Amino acid sequence: METSRVEAFSDGVFAVAITLLALDLRPGQGSTLGRQLLDQNAVAGYAAYVVSFLVIGIIWVNHHSVFRQIARVDRALLFLNLLLLLFVAAIPFPTRLLAEHLGDRVGSNAAAFAYSAVMFLMGVSFGLLWWWAVRGGRLLERPIGRAEERVAIRRFGVGNVAYLALMGVAWVSAPLTLAGHFVVAVYYVLDQLPSAREQAP
Amino acid sequence: METSRVEAFSDGVFAVAITLLALDLRPGQGSTLGRQLLDQNAVAGYAAYVVSFLVIGIIWVNHHSVFRQIARVDRALLFLNLLLLLFVAAIPFPTRLLAEHLGDRVGSNAAAFAYSAVMFLMGVSFGLLWWWAVRGGRLLERPIGRAEERVAIRRFGVGNVAYLALMGVAWVSAPLTLAGHFVVAVYYVLDQLPSAREQAP
Amino acid sequence: METSRVEAFSDGVFAVAITLLALDLRPGQGSTLGRQLLDQNAVAGYAAYVVSFLVIGIIWVNHHSVFRQIARVDRALLFLNLLLLLFVAAIPFPTRLLAEHLGDRVGSNAAAFAYSAVMFLMGVSFGLLWWWAVRGGRLLERPIGRAEERVAIRRFGVGNVAYLALMGVAWVSAPLTLAGHFVVAVYYVLDQLPSAREQAP
Amino acid sequence: METSRVEAFSDGVFAVAITLLALDLRPGQGSTLGRQLLDQNAVAGYAAYVVSFLVIGIIWVNHHSVFRQIARVDRALLFLNLLLLLFVAAIPFPTRLLAEHLGDRVGSNAAAFAYSAVMFLMGVSFGLLWWWAVRGGRLLERPIGRAEERVAIRRFGVGNVAYLALMGVAWVSAPLTLAGHFVVAVYYVLDQLPSAREQAP
Repeated sequence: METSRVEAFSDGVFAVAITLLALDLRPGQGSTLGRQLLDQNAVAGYAAYVVSFLVIGIIWVNHHSVFRQIARVDRALLFLNLLLLLFVAAIPFPTRLLAEHLGDRVGSNAAAFAYSAVMFLMGVSFGLLWWWAVRGGRLLERPIGRAEERVAIRRFGVGNVAYLALMGVAWVSAPLTLAGHFVVAVYYVLDQLPSAREQAP
Repeated sequence: METSRVEAFSDGVFAVAITLLALDLRPGQGSTLGRQLLDQNAVAGYAAYVVSFLVIGIIWVNHHSVFRQIARVDRALLFLNLLLLLFVAAIPFPTRLLAEHLGDRVGSNAAAFAYSAVMFLMGVSFGLLWWWAVRGGRLLERPIGRAEERVAIRRFGVGNVAYLALMGVAWVSAPLTLAGHFVVAVYYVLDQLPSAREQAP
Repeated sequence: METSRVEAFSDGVFAVAITLLALDLRPGQGSTLGRQLLDQNAVAGYAAYVVSFLVIGIIWVNHHSVFRQIARVDRALLFLNLLLLLFVAAIPFPTRLLAEHLGDRVGSNAAAFAYSAVMFLMGVSFGLLWWWAVRGGRLLERPIGRAEERVAIRRFGVGNVAYLALMGVAWVSAPLTLAGHFVVAVYYVLDQLPSAREQAP
Repeated sequence: METSRVEAFSDGVFAVAITLLALDLRPGQGSTLGRQLLDQNAVAGYAAYVVSFLVIGIIWVNHHSVFRQIARVDRALLFLNLLLLLFVAAIPFPTRLLAEHLGDRVGSNAAAFAYSAVMFLMGVSFGLLWWWAVRGGRLLERPIGRAEERVAIRRFGVGNVAYLALMGVAWVSAPLTLAGHFVVAVYYVLDQLPSAREQAP
């Protein structure tokens, strides 16, 4: 199986998952629709939507970045890619939980923990996929250099350590956890995406 | 990342969002199914479906039109494209609100305002994306000329000014607001799509 | 805009609409799950699913068949294609209505009428799209011959006349209407799809 | 119609169906959200999600594997492919049933039977598609050899016999049935996917 097929299928899953997030946007409580739309629960839904949208968008960018280096797909890589997609496709579920429970006294911590845990499992799957692809250079276009490897390890490391930490923060404050995921996502936007300079021929 | 990847992913989001609109079509009140299907609330749903379908369809056309000129994708462009898709994917939400509240005395204005506001934010994101792509010509196939630039500024300007105005009209009449969005969409169909003549080799 | 873009976007809408049909599969009434799954309402849902799946599948095949002949896309063709997709994306709605009301004494006729009406509007949009593409041969790879034109007119004619007739049959019997749509779909499968012989180089 | 079109459309259906599975993830009963998320019904939902995700992922891999050998598409192959997709797109329905009823005393058997039956019908459709494609070698790139044919017959045979057996196991134990489907899926992952060695040029 060529990598283009794997990428096209993965893109389909990314596109569907990112768009399904919006199905859970809904008004909150209030005497008028205007108030319902500005209600704390509705706003929690918007915030969760924005953060999850950004996270899936960034995974998509990094997924291509990794697959651009891959020349061959083996059985284990396909399986690891399915594992990654399993957690990506699941993201709308903890997003819905977090949106519904962000204002709860009790439920918000469990929701924030579930959200961070899915992100962590997603990040670990992605790290495994990358590690499998590069180890020994057998699946790559050309072996990656030391510098590239350090960049990639930092890239995956930052996210996974942050997600792990946010699984702890979840028990302190759910809004803080969501804010933490937003910060991680913005960090990836600012630091990790390929720059125009690198793209130039 | 090549532009073709960005276009394919964006197309996926456009296709899912436009098709999800139909999930909110439903019968209204009435003693028989026939009457329920012709009920004011059901018809409001059909009208909102048609207008939002047309709007997403036109964004899709213009998105390709813009990306056809782009040769390189940088980090900021990817981010601005995600911002655009965030509002495109959200369109089913205000569409549902408008369909459900179009006949309400109170809620219809807030629904129409939310609808217009999402369109405005979408239009502004699209304008930013275009502006980032063309400024200095660094990301383009070839620098665009003065005439092309004037056409594009008019293209984005008309939509955004209209969406802003419709955020005001929303507080006067929700049906009028929806009609306004329909007129803007038809304007884009008639005036903005590339003609067959321009396409000819 | 190249035809490949239009085809890819249309394919996305076809794929999402055909898959969303399954969201409305559900058990009916009964004392055990086994009975609920064999309940008349559940079976009506399966039948409606199969027929609509087949119809969308066939539109997809014919859509490519038409676009294979098209070399250029103009503004009106894009608009007519959006019109076609608007009705294709809407098919899950009357499918749901028909599934829910097939066993009703009263509601079933209106549901069957709505189902046939959406199919008719879809068929008419497709006929218009084809007519616009071939008239004068301006958008075609090469002008089509008399024989091909007769085949195509018969192809579109049979479907649209049948859909119109089924709008009448709807008021007699909803199950008969659904059976009629199944027969039309099977007719297209048997008679209209390009044969392997024509495909051979 | 070229095979690439059929593959792209089928990929769309696979991607949407696999992602829609997550719409049915939901908390179970419990006094706190934490308990609801670890409730037996919620866990049943996660298990059903994982197994169905894996099954659709593997069908997708095998689908490409088959289509890579196919050079021409005829009318019957298109029809058989639609039949396969009809069952693939339906998988979220029995998955939902199984998730909801896995812990029931009565309903779980019928749900497990429905789940196995859909998998069996899907497997049979896929077997028919493959058989139609290879019989006489008319649709293939090059006739397949005896060895390849034996491998493929084993490949399809194992799945279909297992699915048939699981239709019986369903009446003994629903969790055992789900575990059986997981084992079949893992068998396909381990045994059936093309290895990196075969991929190498």
